[in-house]
Amino acid sequence: MSKILILGGGGMIGQKLAKRIIETNVMANSELTLFDRAFTSNALVAKTMTGNLANPTTAKTLAASRPEVIFHLAAIVSGQAEAEFNLGWNVNMMAMWHLLNALKVEHEASGCTYRPRLVFTSSIAVFGGPYPEKIGDEFLSAPQTSYGAQKATCELMVNDFSRKGIIDGLSLRLPTICVRPGKANAAASSFFSGIIREPLNGFEAILPVADTVRHWHASPRAAAQFLIHAALLDTKILNGRRALNLPGFSCTVAEQIEALRHAAGQKAVDLIKSVPDETIINMVSGWPRDFQPDRAISLGFEAEKSFNEIIEVYMQDDLST
Amino acid sequence: MSKILILGGGGMIGQKLAKRIIETNVMANSELTLFDRAFTSNALVAKTMTGNLANPTTAKTLAASRPEVIFHLAAIVSGQAEAEFNLGWNVNMMAMWHLLNALKVEHEASGCTYRPRLVFTSSIAVFGGPYPEKIGDEFLSAPQTSYGAQKATCELMVNDFSRKGIIDGLSLRLPTICVRPGKANAAASSFFSGIIREPLNGFEAILPVADTVRHWHASPRAAAQFLIHAALLDTKILNGRRALNLPGFSCTVAEQIEALRHAAGQKAVDLIKSVPDETIINMVSGWPRDFQPDRAISLGFEAEKSFNEIIEVYMQDDLST
Repeated sequence: MSKILILGGGGMIGQKLAKRIIETNVMANSELTLFDRAFTSNALVAKTMTGNLANPTTAKTLAASRPEVIFHLAAIVSGQAEAEFNLGWNVNMMAMWHLLNALKVEHEASGCTYRPRLVFTSSIAVFGGPYPEKIGDEFLSAPQTSYGAQKATCELMVNDFSRKGIIDGLSLRLPTICVRPGKANAAASSFFSGIIREPLNGFEAILPVADTVRHWHASPRAAAQFLIHAALLDTKILNGRRALNLPGFSCTVAEQIEALRHAAGQKAVDLIKSVPDETIINMVSGWPRDFQPDRAISLGFEAEKSFNEIIEVYMQDDLST
Repeated sequence: MSKILILGGGGMIGQKLAKRIIETNVMANSELTLFDRAFTSNALVAKTMTGNLANPTTAKTLAASRPEVIFHLAAIVSGQAEAEFNLGWNVNMMAMWHLLNALKVEHEASGCTYRPRLVFTSSIAVFGGPYPEKIGDEFLSAPQTSYGAQKATCELMVNDFSRKGIIDGLSLRLPTICVRPGKANAAASSFFSGIIREPLNGFEAILPVADTVRHWHASPRAAAQFLIHAALLDTKILNGRRALNLPGFSCTVAEQIEALRHAAGQKAVDLIKSVPDETIINMVSGWPRDFQPDRAISLGFEAEKSFNEIIEVYMQDDLST
């Protein structure tokens, strides 16, 4: 019986991941615990724990249960981390610091036998422009948001604690996850989902940027599968570079809208209203647009190959009929 | 009257920097304070303060004096950070965290007018192999030592606190500084200086690696000048990428030895004893060998153009006659 802990287990990706672990039975005979600040009443039924990860005591409590696999998805999202500077750094960086140190205490107490797999959801926000046409696996991390800087510091910690044998970690630089089900969140990238999700549900959607904006996407289903694949990966073949640019699909907002038209017709497209927002325009202008993620592809990570496919996944998995 | 604070002011580079600031009068009408854990009795005469930077209270005290320019050179060196994991992270990362947060308190208390220039000495240890022939300005930071990981986390913090206007910082990825005067230190790179310095002073020196090892060097004089240049640089032209690969000179250990022969003859070379050390061989094998630091050169940073020149600087500045 192995223990799996999902930090941020109440969030959208956390729930998708938990569901996929249970349904596919890919990690058989495992005991799943979801941790988050709070859970909604319709959250997936599994063992849940609530608390504040930025509190060192919380990290100690979680580590003391010695989970074999930890998925760390908990974060203050990009827009909020930009608006609330202290909160972003405390949750997005210091919580990782406390967690790693708590795991180190358990590692040492176990006579160095306890060495959990830690799968950390980093982000393409670790990159900042100017960019090459496609971002390769050796391109520098020069984030231009607090969220990106915080994710990048965590990658460095995960790598070094892993190199020292305290944990066996890796960091996944997730594409923007699209189409997110549910409500818009405070991520500045939220509109990339909103302009598809709201029209498919018959609601108006706001497009705050120009339709020429190009971005890098993968579905929630692909994200859940990335995480499971990472949990089962032989990390020796990473040769000490434990942060990975994941596969995704690159397209413009206009191409997203074309795919929406293909799926739901002009009446859906007509629900998108252009309302430029300078704050979002500025943030998005610094974001990556396209990647050449050769390493992750060679390691078996897979994403959708068209935006039509991304919309289909949403319609299959999340669109209430 | 502007206040200049040198953290690590008792160290070799700190002393060189302080001396150069005073002698060249490049920062006229300034009041210089040197901070370190301790000072030797022959340390440069300037206002000194002692304390432990890893203690948040120390950072608060230092920030409260509102220095306009802060040089942050204080660090646990690479070999020690590798051997003493907790100490390395606490001093090399957490001290920066405490300092930046203390500066943020002063920034806010000043009505956002206090915004010090922070010049941070990072290191080429932020890089890890495999490398291209020459490391360019857009090559990823994937450190393979704790020291390198800690320096890289600090770069990210300096960048983000600067982006937010709390400080005006930049990070200098110093080449290995050679020839270091004085005694060998716990840096794994110490031998690069030792094999030149000891023979020039009539002593035996240990060479722990093969003479085919290629590495990236600049003199202590160049380092002091890098720091002053950084303190006076217009940071707007950095376009938000505030970590710089600095110029240096790339050569093999054999080429270093040739330069020693040129400067002091075969009798000096004969004092070098080859004693392979697996720990050092392993660490050094992961280090950078050569760079193409176009950005820093275009920004006016300058280093020596031969190892002969690097030895000459040592003989002029430090060799006791």
